[in-house]
Amino acid sequence: MHRMRVEQLESPLSVQGKEVRHLHVLRLKPGDTLAVFDGQGLEAEARIVELAEFSATLELGEAREVAREHPQAVTLAVALLKGDKLSDVVRQATELGAARIQLLQTRYADVPDIGDNKLSRLRRVAEEAAKQSRRAVVPEVLAPVPLARLPEVSCGFVAHPGSGERLLDHLDWSAEVWLASGPEGGFSEAEIELLRSRGYRAITLGPRILRAETAPVALLGAIAATGV
Amino acid sequence: MHRMRVEQLESPLSVQGKEVRHLHVLRLKPGDTLAVFDGQGLEAEARIVELAEFSATLELGEAREVAREHPQAVTLAVALLKGDKLSDVVRQATELGAARIQLLQTRYADVPDIGDNKLSRLRRVAEEAAKQSRRAVVPEVLAPVPLARLPEVSCGFVAHPGSGERLLDHLDWSAEVWLASGPEGGFSEAEIELLRSRGYRAITLGPRILRAETAPVALLGAIAATGV
Repeated sequence: MHRMRVEQLESPLSVQGKEVRHLHVLRLKPGDTLAVFDGQGLEAEARIVELAEFSATLELGEAREVAREHPQAVTLAVALLKGDKLSDVVRQATELGAARIQLLQTRYADVPDIGDNKLSRLRRVAEEAAKQSRRAVVPEVLAPVPLARLPEVSCGFVAHPGSGERLLDHLDWSAEVWLASGPEGGFSEAEIELLRSRGYRAITLGPRILRAETAPVALLGAIAATGV
Repeated sequence: MHRMRVEQLESPLSVQGKEVRHLHVLRLKPGDTLAVFDGQGLEAEARIVELAEFSATLELGEAREVAREHPQAVTLAVALLKGDKLSDVVRQATELGAARIQLLQTRYADVPDIGDNKLSRLRRVAEEAAKQSRRAVVPEVLAPVPLARLPEVSCGFVAHPGSGERLLDHLDWSAEVWLASGPEGGFSEAEIELLRSRGYRAITLGPRILRAETAPVALLGAIAATGV
């Protein structure tokens, strides 16, 4: 169904200008239906009642919350990073729909642990980013655990240089999705083996070297670009 | 062909430990070939000469530069953003393989123009990021032009809330790829229409609102996750 943004959801709804042109571009006719949304989190089904060259009238169904969450929870398990990099990752991961961010202690992690203050700050970053991206769900930010404490999963991925497997060939939303992302120095080979044994599939992010704060955004971006 | 990372490219190459286990996991046999790479930008074809439980010998072909560039140049046309946001976009776009970054003046852009100093700084950011990501190509960063000056393209994309079309359904590498990304306030409807008329297809990045510096990274991440 076509979707069109409108100023507000009221019924009947009169539209003019750009929106009417948009209806003509879509070759819609009186009686056709489309989805309208207000960009504030609400949408409704709309039926075209009248359609003239420069104006139209739509009859709207009940307004409902737009679904902004993935079909299954996506958890980003990310190694501890230096400075503000973790804030950047938490902010962008929240925008891109992560349901949970599990901080990880790994062999080559930039820092061994983080204090309560920093953890609280990351939680505030997630809350703020959820608001900005109009999500109703604020992702949990979970205190760091050693990599070996990650549970076994049935749909997990870890970006690994040299893998030829592709994320989207294996993403079928049959289970919760887990993404593991390493520190600047990468995961060790032993850590990759551990992740594999826990159900994480090694996948490619292309033949370039990505910084630790870019890789998780690329993974979540690839998922978002499928439209979920 | 399977790919394996090794310490260095010399022939004959003796490998032990993890790498031998990896060969067994891949169920390779003497006589089979695979690609080996050193993580420093070189790779070679390798034939397994001997394969025992804990050691193996490989015969390597000529070492060659790893291809780190997309099959066609990818240009990111991005609206001017405030503060350090453009640096972040240029840095991450470079890591993710953009060949060119065209700065854009748009109706709702955060700033009307940038000075020569800032442009030079963005070019240094691209150079540094190219080095870090081991690319041989440093993306051009082109001085801002009005959106209307963008050329007509045959394979262009613009993320647009409400579109149900997906980037990867239309990315066939038959031509150079252009990605247009708006300012914090988004493109105006007229700008979207202009982009459409120039060959840009409106595509989805999911039902959440992304910040202006996150959207281009998500688009380029989606491309990188296809392995190119």
